[in-house]
Amino acid sequence: MNKLLVIAFGGNALLRGDQAGTIHEQEKNIYDTCNKVVNLIKKGYDVVIGHGNGPQVGTVLMQHEAGMRLYGLPKQPIDFCVAETQGSIGYMIEQQLQNVLSEHGIEKNIVTLVTQVLVDKNDEAFKNPTKPVGPFYSKEESDKLNKDNGWIFKEDPRDRGWRRVVPSPKPSDIPSWHAVEKLARDGNIVITVGGGGIPAYIESDGKFSGIDAVIDKDLASSLLASKIKADEFIILTDVPNVCINFNTPEEKKLKEIKLSEAKKYLEEGHFAEGSMAPKIKACIQFVENSKNKAEITDASQIGKNKKGTIIF
Amino acid sequence: MNKLLVIAFGGNALLRGDQAGTIHEQEKNIYDTCNKVVNLIKKGYDVVIGHGNGPQVGTVLMQHEAGMRLYGLPKQPIDFCVAETQGSIGYMIEQQLQNVLSEHGIEKNIVTLVTQVLVDKNDEAFKNPTKPVGPFYSKEESDKLNKDNGWIFKEDPRDRGWRRVVPSPKPSDIPSWHAVEKLARDGNIVITVGGGGIPAYIESDGKFSGIDAVIDKDLASSLLASKIKADEFIILTDVPNVCINFNTPEEKKLKEIKLSEAKKYLEEGHFAEGSMAPKIKACIQFVENSKNKAEITDASQIGKNKKGTIIF
Repeated sequence: MNKLLVIAFGGNALLRGDQAGTIHEQEKNIYDTCNKVVNLIKKGYDVVIGHGNGPQVGTVLMQHEAGMRLYGLPKQPIDFCVAETQGSIGYMIEQQLQNVLSEHGIEKNIVTLVTQVLVDKNDEAFKNPTKPVGPFYSKEESDKLNKDNGWIFKEDPRDRGWRRVVPSPKPSDIPSWHAVEKLARDGNIVITVGGGGIPAYIESDGKFSGIDAVIDKDLASSLLASKIKADEFIILTDVPNVCINFNTPEEKKLKEIKLSEAKKYLEEGHFAEGSMAPKIKACIQFVENSKNKAEITDASQIGKNKKGTIIF
Repeated sequence: MNKLLVIAFGGNALLRGDQAGTIHEQEKNIYDTCNKVVNLIKKGYDVVIGHGNGPQVGTVLMQHEAGMRLYGLPKQPIDFCVAETQGSIGYMIEQQLQNVLSEHGIEKNIVTLVTQVLVDKNDEAFKNPTKPVGPFYSKEESDKLNKDNGWIFKEDPRDRGWRRVVPSPKPSDIPSWHAVEKLARDGNIVITVGGGGIPAYIESDGKFSGIDAVIDKDLASSLLASKIKADEFIILTDVPNVCINFNTPEEKKLKEIKLSEAKKYLEEGHFAEGSMAPKIKACIQFVENSKNKAEITDASQIGKNKKGTIIF
C-alpha cells in the first residue's frame, strides 16, 4: 500500500499578504505550490490536501456586507461563507493541480469535497470568541449589530474600528472521513476540510446545524490525518523552518525535534498564538495519535533533501 | 445492482421567487424537497443530485460588484462565482438531506463534489451571449465595462437598466464522471454539477482553464446521467406536469410521451426558451443516449403513484 499523506496549504501557498486576491494571483500561487507538491505524488504517495481560507473568507464576509448595503441582499452566516470558499479555493487548487499533473504526464483524478467539520457546542471557545472576521465597523454600527444579532465586537488595536470576533472551537469529528480515506486509497487526490471545514454541530435531536465559528485549518487537517491513519502530515507555511527565540539574538531553527521537545517549547511560549502555535499543536496532536512524523515547512522545500521542521 | 438515478433540483426546490434568499429560507425549501426525494432512497435507488444556482450566482455576482465599489475588493470571473455557489448550495443540500435521512433512520453517506464541466470554446454560443447575469448598470457604466473588460450588455426589456449577458454553451464533458459513478455505486449519495458545473475548457496546450459562461444545469445533469449510465433521470421543477399550448384554452398536461412526440412538440415551439425548452432538450438527450426514461415534475409528486411528465 502507498504511503498516505495529508498536506495542509496555507499562507503563501494560496495568497500573499501583498496581493489583492484576484483569481490570477491565487491561481499562480497555487500552481507554484502544486508544482512542488507534485514531487511527493511522483514518489507514490496517496495525497489528501487541506487548505486555509483566512483572507478569502474575510473577502466573502465583506462582500456580503457590501451586498446588503448596496443591494439589500441578505448577509449569510459564517458556515455558509466558509462553504463558498471551499467551492472557490477547492476549484482553483483542483484546476491548477490538474495542469501540473498533465505537464508531468501523471494521470490521476482529483476529487474536491465540500466538507463539514463538527465542533462541540459546549467548547470553552464559545464563551470567549477571539477570532476577528469580516469588515471594520464604527462603534455605533457595532453596537447596533450586537443588539440586533448578538455579535461580539472587539476594538482593533491599530485603530481601524470595531471588528466582529467569533469562537475558534476545536474540531471534534469529520463525518466524511471514511469517504476521504476510500477516495485517496482508490488513487484519487482529495481536496477537503477547506478553511478548517464548514463549522457544524449536532443538536440534541441529532440534527446537523451550522454554527458561527472558525475552525483552525491545521487542527482540522491534523484530525483528518489521524482519522484516516495518514503516514505523514505536512503543514505548508511561509517559512522553511520553525524557530525558537524567534526575532531575538538566540533565534534557532528547529530541524528534527522529539514530541517532548515540541511540547516543552510550546509551553515556554516560543510560538505565537494564531500563527505558529496552532501549527505546533496540530503536529503534536497528529504525532501523539499516529506515532508517525509531522513536518512544518514551506513549499520550496518539498521533494528536496533539505527538510523543514520535523516532529517525531 | 440498484437502479441509478440522477435527479436535478431547480426552482422551488432551492429558492422561491418571492423569497429574499436567507439561508433559513433555502434550508427549509431544500429540507422539504429532500423529504420527498427520500422516498426514492427508501426504494433502493443509488442517487446522484444535480442542482441549479440561478438566483444564488446572481447574488454572488452582485456581492462581488458591491464589494468592489465599497471596499475595492477584486471582482472574480463567473467560473469562480459558480464554484462559490457549488460550495454553499452543496453544503445546504448535504446538511438538510443528512437530517432527513436521520429522521427516517437511513444510514447513508453524502458526498458533495466541486465539479468542473467542460465546454467547447468554438461553441456557437460564444458568438451570441444570451444569458443575463449580475446587477443592472446604467448605460454609461455598461459602456465602460464593455470597453474595459469586453463584457457584452443588453438593455433590460423592463427598463431596469443594462445587464451583462454571457454565453450558455453546451456541456461537452464532465471529467469527474468516473468518480461520481464509483461513489454512487459504493452507496454514497452524490451532490454534483451544481449550477450546471464550473464552466471550463481545455486550451490548445492541454491545460484546463475557467471561462465566463453559464451552463444549463439540466443539460449538464443529463450529460452526467448518460455518462454514468443512469437508469432514470428526473428534473424537478415548479409544476407537476409539462403542458402544450400553455396558457391557452387548448392547454394540455403531458403524462407519458414518446421521444418522437417530445421532439415534435419542441419543434412546434410549445416550450419557452430558458425555461421548459432546455428541460425537454435535456430529457430528449438522455432518452436518446440511454434508451431509459426521463421525467419532469415537481417534488410533491416524488414517490407518489401520480406521475409527472415522462418521456420514454
